[in-house]
Amino acid sequence: MAYELYYWDGLQGRGEFVRLALEEAGADYVDVARSNPDAMTALLDSTTEPHPPYAPPFLKDGDLIVPQTANILFYLGPKLGLAPKNDALRYVANGLQLTIADLVTEAHDTHHPLASALYYEDQKDAAKARSADFIKHRIPKFMRYFERVLVQNPDGKKRHMVGDALSYVDLSMFQIVEGLRYAFPKATQHFADHYPHVVALCDAVAKRPNIAAYVASGRRIAFNESGIFRHYAELDHAVR
Amino acid sequence: MAYELYYWDGLQGRGEFVRLALEEAGADYVDVARSNPDAMTALLDSTTEPHPPYAPPFLKDGDLIVPQTANILFYLGPKLGLAPKNDALRYVANGLQLTIADLVTEAHDTHHPLASALYYEDQKDAAKARSADFIKHRIPKFMRYFERVLVQNPDGKKRHMVGDALSYVDLSMFQIVEGLRYAFPKATQHFADHYPHVVALCDAVAKRPNIAAYVASGRRIAFNESGIFRHYAELDHAVR
Repeated sequence: MAYELYYWDGLQGRGEFVRLALEEAGADYVDVARSNPDAMTALLDSTTEPHPPYAPPFLKDGDLIVPQTANILFYLGPKLGLAPKNDALRYVANGLQLTIADLVTEAHDTHHPLASALYYEDQKDAAKARSADFIKHRIPKFMRYFERVLVQNPDGKKRHMVGDALSYVDLSMFQIVEGLRYAFPKATQHFADHYPHVVALCDAVAKRPNIAAYVASGRRIAFNESGIFRHYAELDHAVR
Repeated sequence: MAYELYYWDGLQGRGEFVRLALEEAGADYVDVARSNPDAMTALLDSTTEPHPPYAPPFLKDGDLIVPQTANILFYLGPKLGLAPKNDALRYVANGLQLTIADLVTEAHDTHHPLASALYYEDQKDAAKARSADFIKHRIPKFMRYFERVLVQNPDGKKRHMVGDALSYVDLSMFQIVEGLRYAFPKATQHFADHYPHVVALCDAVAKRPNIAAYVASGRRIAFNESGIFRHYAELDHAVR
C-alpha cells in the first residue's frame, strides 16, 4: 500500500524533507493534500482518531499516523534503505535530523519572529533584527557544525553525515542548503569556500538520478514566499 | 555504568525532561556539567569525536553520544521502562515529544524573539508582542491538542498520553505545565478548568514517589530567569 504524506499544498515546507526521501527511494506514495486538502483537515480535527497529529507533515502508513518530520524520517529511513544499518548510528542520524529541524524553525522565524498569525509586513522590523542575527551568528554556527560532522564522521569519507552511505540526513542537508541559498543569496554566496564538504555533499545529492528526475519533473514545488525559506531582499546581506 | 547527562548547570532547561525520566526510573546517572562543565565543553568542541553533538543536552551511554532531548528520551524510554512496549506506539510517543519540544522552543522565544545572543532587556518590546501571541493563540492550541490526545488515547483511560501506562511523554507534560505556570501564572490560572485531564495527569505525576522525592531533595534546580520558562511579569496577563 502506498505511503500517504499529508502536508500543505503550494509550498515545500517541512514536507519536502520527507518527499526527498520518498523520491530518492522511488517509494510508492501519495501527496494527499495536494489533491484532497479536506482529507488532511479531517485527520487533524478528528475527535475519534486514536492518535491525532498536531500539525502537518504527517505520514499515514496503513492505520499508523506518524507525525513530525524527523519522526517520519526515523520511521521511514530503514524501510527506504536511507538509514544507517547500525542501531546506534540511527540515534546519531536522528540527532542530526533534529538539529536540522532546529535550523528550519529558526529560518522560519527570520520572517515571522513575533507571530505566525501575523503577516510578514506587520513584523518587518523585528524580522530584520532576527535575520541579521541569523546571518551573523546562527547560520555560521549551524554550518560550521555540519561541516565538522562531515569531516569527523569516521565512516563517511567526508561525503556522508552519518555512516558509510547515503542517508535521509544527507538529503535533508541538500534541502537546507538549497533553502538558505534561495532565501539569502547574498549571505550564502561564499558557502562553497566556507563549508566545502557540505556544498560537495549537496552537489552530489543534486546529481543523484532520482533526485535530479524529481527536480526536473516539475513535481517539486518551487521555493516561494508561502514556505519556510522565503526570499525578502531586505532581510539578506553579504557576509565576509 | 552510569548514564552521563550533559547540560548547562544552573537551569532546568531542556535537560530537565531527561532528568525527570532518569529520576522516575531510579536510574544511575551523573549530571556531569554540574560538577565538571569543562567536560561538556570538551565534547562539544572536540575535533576527534566521531559524532559530536551540536548543543546540550546530550547523553553519553558508554561510547555513544545521543543528542537532542526527544532523541535521548526515545533512546532511554525503553531502557527505563518509560516507553510503550508496542513499536508503533513508540513513534506516537516520539511525535508527541517533538510537539512538546516545539512548545518549549516557542516558550523560549517569548523572551528571546529576536536573538538568543541579545539580552532580554534589549528585545523587551518584541518579547511583549510574541508573548501576547503565545498566550492568545499558541498556548491554547497546544493545550487543547494535548487535552484531546489524553481523551482520545484508546488505551490510556484519559490518564496517559500514549499507551496504557506512564511514559516519558507524561513526565514531560508535567514539566511543560509546571514551566508555563511559573512563567505565566496569570495566563495559566484557569488551566484546571480548560484542560482538566492534562492538569490531572500533572497532579498524578507530581505525586509519584520518585518524582516527589526528587522535587523534595533540592536536586531539582528551581525555575529561574536563566532557563527556558522565565517569569517576567510584563509578559504575562490573564485570559478569559
